[in-house]
Amino acid sequence: MSEYDDEQILWKESGQTETVWKEFIFEIDHVHRVSPEGKEHPFVVCRTPDWVTVVPELEEGDNSDFLMVRQFRHGSGALSMEFPAGVVDPGEEPLHAAVRELREETGYTAEELILIGKINPNPAFMCNTSWTYLARGLKKTESLDLDEQEFITAHKIAKSVIDREMGVREYNNAIMVQSWYWYKRFTDNES
Amino acid sequence: MSEYDDEQILWKESGQTETVWKEFIFEIDHVHRVSPEGKEHPFVVCRTPDWVTVVPELEEGDNSDFLMVRQFRHGSGALSMEFPAGVVDPGEEPLHAAVRELREETGYTAEELILIGKINPNPAFMCNTSWTYLARGLKKTESLDLDEQEFITAHKIAKSVIDREMGVREYNNAIMVQSWYWYKRFTDNES
Repeated sequence: MSEYDDEQILWKESGQTETVWKEFIFEIDHVHRVSPEGKEHPFVVCRTPDWVTVVPELEEGDNSDFLMVRQFRHGSGALSMEFPAGVVDPGEEPLHAAVRELREETGYTAEELILIGKINPNPAFMCNTSWTYLARGLKKTESLDLDEQEFITAHKIAKSVIDREMGVREYNNAIMVQSWYWYKRFTDNES
Repeated sequence: MSEYDDEQILWKESGQTETVWKEFIFEIDHVHRVSPEGKEHPFVVCRTPDWVTVVPELEEGDNSDFLMVRQFRHGSGALSMEFPAGVVDPGEEPLHAAVRELREETGYTAEELILIGKINPNPAFMCNTSWTYLARGLKKTESLDLDEQEFITAHKIAKSVIDREMGVREYNNAIMVQSWYWYKRFTDNES
């Protein structure tokens, strides 16, 4: 096994970056870096805003239900069951985006939103952060408030179902697995 | 809460797709679909090969160490501690890619590779699958075998460190959290 030797693995910025494709919330850049051996190479970096996911726990404990939303996803081309989630708007705080997505996609507000994890979705080519909040003290206050291209239905799903289904059928989103891991680690530490 | 009503949320293929950017292992398409209300709209889909991640458990039980690799990641522009992972080559089986990545990045071979999870990294705009294998019966057989642009060091990391560090400092990759969730669920069901 190796020693921790940063110099052996660290790439340095060359200062050169070009945007090679850009549209809506996506931008693809070529970022040039210099290898530990001194060779320069361009790498693909996908720039997109931060994401938030909200894990809405309807009551605490083993028999809790969770609010989830069911929608068609255009990457997979299939229906997907997920926690409420979305993109952080320009200049918006992640916490604000969490409040907003929860309200828009489920019609619920929360007394408490707790940051339970933040991480890069895939540092190999992404540069953004995926924020996960646990929502408690939930109250239904209004109807869903969806964009023109959003067609979503909201559902109450039991914890045992989420445990069983993650990774099969419509529970096919790694960002939700990541969020569920943060939830389980947070509640394990509470008990 | 809503009934399960597919017709209310399902988009249909219009048949029209354009590739708007393509390079190396990445392709960005516009996929046109027709909404439940009958309106057509193009959506961004990022096509890239499947990924494999290998969770290499050096011995079973609570005191196990795991093989991890430390490398610079060009999306985050930072050093990252991860399980061995990589892209499935064209025509390659995911299991073969897992064997290959483990050998190339750590120099180890495994007596047993168990598929413990598969999922879409983000069905909102990705269409590929992230496969996770648990590797057991590990033996060091050769040196690392790295590409010209790979600068990686291999390390033994204790389970307690992974539990504590996921999501902080260099443990900043959601694909590894997803893989660690599959590992914990699999081993919980074994005991």
